[in-house]
Amino acid sequence: MTSHFPDATPKEIAEALQQMQAAAPALAATTLAQRADLMYSIADLLEQSGDALLQLTMEETHLPEARLRGERARTVFQWRNYADACRRGDWLEVRIDTADAGKTPPKPDLRKMNVPIGPVLVFGASNFPYAYSTAGGDTASAFAAGCPVVLKAHPAHARTSEAVAAVVRQGLQKHGLPAELFVHLHGSGTEVGQALVKHPAIKAVGFTGSFAGGKALFDAANQRPEPIPVFAEMGSVNPVFLLPDKLATDDTAVAQQYAASITLGVGQFCTNPGLLIGIAGEAFDVFAATLSEAIGQVAAGAMLHQGIADAFEKNKAQALAQRGVQLWANGQPGQRELQASATIALVSAADFLQQPALHHEVFGPFSLLIKCEETADMYAVAQALEGQLTCSLMATAADLETYADLLPIVSSKCGRLVLNGVPTGVEVCQAMQHGGPYPASTDSRFGSVGADAIRRFCRPLAYQNWPDEYLPAALQNSNPWQLWRSVNGTWNNEPL
Amino acid sequence: MTSHFPDATPKEIAEALQQMQAAAPALAATTLAQRADLMYSIADLLEQSGDALLQLTMEETHLPEARLRGERARTVFQWRNYADACRRGDWLEVRIDTADAGKTPPKPDLRKMNVPIGPVLVFGASNFPYAYSTAGGDTASAFAAGCPVVLKAHPAHARTSEAVAAVVRQGLQKHGLPAELFVHLHGSGTEVGQALVKHPAIKAVGFTGSFAGGKALFDAANQRPEPIPVFAEMGSVNPVFLLPDKLATDDTAVAQQYAASITLGVGQFCTNPGLLIGIAGEAFDVFAATLSEAIGQVAAGAMLHQGIADAFEKNKAQALAQRGVQLWANGQPGQRELQASATIALVSAADFLQQPALHHEVFGPFSLLIKCEETADMYAVAQALEGQLTCSLMATAADLETYADLLPIVSSKCGRLVLNGVPTGVEVCQAMQHGGPYPASTDSRFGSVGADAIRRFCRPLAYQNWPDEYLPAALQNSNPWQLWRSVNGTWNNEPL
Repeated sequence: MTSHFPDATPKEIAEALQQMQAAAPALAATTLAQRADLMYSIADLLEQSGDALLQLTMEETHLPEARLRGERARTVFQWRNYADACRRGDWLEVRIDTADAGKTPPKPDLRKMNVPIGPVLVFGASNFPYAYSTAGGDTASAFAAGCPVVLKAHPAHARTSEAVAAVVRQGLQKHGLPAELFVHLHGSGTEVGQALVKHPAIKAVGFTGSFAGGKALFDAANQRPEPIPVFAEMGSVNPVFLLPDKLATDDTAVAQQYAASITLGVGQFCTNPGLLIGIAGEAFDVFAATLSEAIGQVAAGAMLHQGIADAFEKNKAQALAQRGVQLWANGQPGQRELQASATIALVSAADFLQQPALHHEVFGPFSLLIKCEETADMYAVAQALEGQLTCSLMATAADLETYADLLPIVSSKCGRLVLNGVPTGVEVCQAMQHGGPYPASTDSRFGSVGADAIRRFCRPLAYQNWPDEYLPAALQNSNPWQLWRSVNGTWNNEPL
Repeated sequence: MTSHFPDATPKEIAEALQQMQAAAPALAATTLAQRADLMYSIADLLEQSGDALLQLTMEETHLPEARLRGERARTVFQWRNYADACRRGDWLEVRIDTADAGKTPPKPDLRKMNVPIGPVLVFGASNFPYAYSTAGGDTASAFAAGCPVVLKAHPAHARTSEAVAAVVRQGLQKHGLPAELFVHLHGSGTEVGQALVKHPAIKAVGFTGSFAGGKALFDAANQRPEPIPVFAEMGSVNPVFLLPDKLATDDTAVAQQYAASITLGVGQFCTNPGLLIGIAGEAFDVFAATLSEAIGQVAAGAMLHQGIADAFEKNKAQALAQRGVQLWANGQPGQRELQASATIALVSAADFLQQPALHHEVFGPFSLLIKCEETADMYAVAQALEGQLTCSLMATAADLETYADLLPIVSSKCGRLVLNGVPTGVEVCQAMQHGGPYPASTDSRFGSVGADAIRRFCRPLAYQNWPDEYLPAALQNSNPWQLWRSVNGTWNNEPL
């Protein structure tokens, strides 16, 4: 892929990261309220970035205006939501254990809080030019935690990235903070990203994209002299279990709902439902027929760029070429360059189980309908799954009772369990988990949507035996920021 | 190293792990209260394990009875403390965001909690036969999180490990839980451990020991088809900054305090202070002379086993052979096998900075006294340090003002900052952080002492759109376990 801009040179990288390191203490020294104010300003500036930005991104990504307008609004909301969480300070995870001279040996005063992990390397994501790119969730999380950001622009929307980077820098300057806290670099291939992940100044990595891309970063990070954590969200097939009683009750509605979810955003979401698993029978047949009909009416949509469009056609063809795989439904054919036609394929559980190639994501509007002969087949399919961002159950109360043994299996496979809904649509809230067991993400203990994502970029530091006046504000007896703290094992937001 | 028992064979490993997997749901299904009861029972049984166990461990480890009696009491306390934390359930990190149909798009009900990560592989530590071995902090953390444990016994105290494993199994059986939830395996070399870390049933690893051992596990875990997290605590040199005003006020007391800390437990603690950094001057000279005198009076002590005793002599000789390193003080000479004599060496900051070999831990009663010509030297030494478990400052209020720029440097290097105290003595409490930036540990975001260690062995799972009656108890509206939960961004322990 080529970028609109030349690749950052090693000299440019070295200088930018040196300036960033020099600026880092200024961000770390801000109070939670100051950091939240900065984040609110970036949200405001982004909100005011106007239609010119949308036009530019439309040109670069082929995403429709309404989607981009919505994504920008989501991004603005995300900054404000994380700013509120930053100020609330739960993510500091303050623990205070006061001294006990009567204990043997005497117990010292110990107070622990999270501190910034250090500069974070963030990669722009092709499919979210706003929400998971330059001023996306990873950047917002890092700033909330007090970490400078090195942003590797996605080459497919490099001009958008430049424009958004200017907004972030404007926000920093408005609050008297050095613009060098946000480094923005271009790279068309993998060289710049690899150089950055290996740079000793970088202490953590945020990435949303392909398995190959995320895994390469994970390996490079682990092989550094000082290994660093990589939070790569690498997508998944998001299996959906269509349980018999639900299908018998609701076959048409479920089919309509899923036809929409499969083709939403031309299937370019990491939560796109790629596997639909049902048990053979009349309801399954009605569902499959209705799904086919609904998909047949879906217009082709333009994919993000030529590389993604080509990969979709190639991976779809590979899936369709596997033994026992039958083309089940096609959406309207593409009329213009980059346009992809939605596709549903059908396969038996037995053929699915024997061909691991079918277990991997086909990024785009493609889903595989798996027909199980009996319940045991469905359980076997569930057991065979790799780690997923989401698993969904379409089920009545009767189904949940009959198929109770399915729940522990799918629970062990994913980060989010959806009941009677679709996995697309990832709400920005604290109770969201966007991440899951490998290979859905490289670290199942964290997620990249919702304010708990801030915790990826900090680490605990304990203070032993420090007089109150030398402690950070968050740990002081008077609790000047009114934080919720665990004090000798009890939660409160009071002074000591 | 040879073990009292034959190495586990591949067949034994495969069978034990299969039985463990079959038993796992029984543990995951326990309530927090049931798990806490189990942990209290294990604590009670361990407390009642009698003097015979102490005798056995004395034979195997050459640790004195008082130390072992104290360590067992600490281990019993640890089980009870983690049991209380397990029952309190903060570690579940419950977040609830209720539905909002009025939002565009409508916001679904989302509820998130931590679930067990899966079976945990724990390695017994040579220097803590009770507190960080078979029924140590990692095992207690894993059980609290609902994870089965595969325990690789340390060959240096394999019989102790067998006896303690019997206690753990007895506890499980007392509560009607399968003994197979705790797998106990022997291995004299690295083969059994390597086979276990690569086994697909294992989902996380806890380790306390050498850098070489921890790094080998970390690499093996990252190279698996499904990488898993490794929590390896690999020790450090625990630098101590002796600031001038403090030394001028207190030189003798500080020297006495540190002579005791350096030689505590024959220096076999990962928090042993291995670097003492001061600025040349009269107070430094008095401190150094007093330290030399105090060390001279310390009797030699038996080290844990021949391998550790040999490594101590070798690493100490290597350190003493570096350019500019001067032998400064020796403790009383060893009289018997395994006995090590305490040693202090002296070096200039310039020579220290130029020789990275001096930056690594010499496990045992050895410390390096670094004499800085000026303040800048001390800052340079601080900057040059690798990641540490602890950094300590011996400082008056005046020192903290004069050397204010030292604080951000040392803060970025360690997991625990001690003021006017010694790093040895790791209190078991929630505000403790025992871990630190690499290479002190492989994951600076977690620690291995204190109940927050439970969180190493779980991961978040979000439930979207589930009716109350199908949710886990922790997420239900009625809050049956009276957990502290973040509900729509507000902390409370009430029903919804």
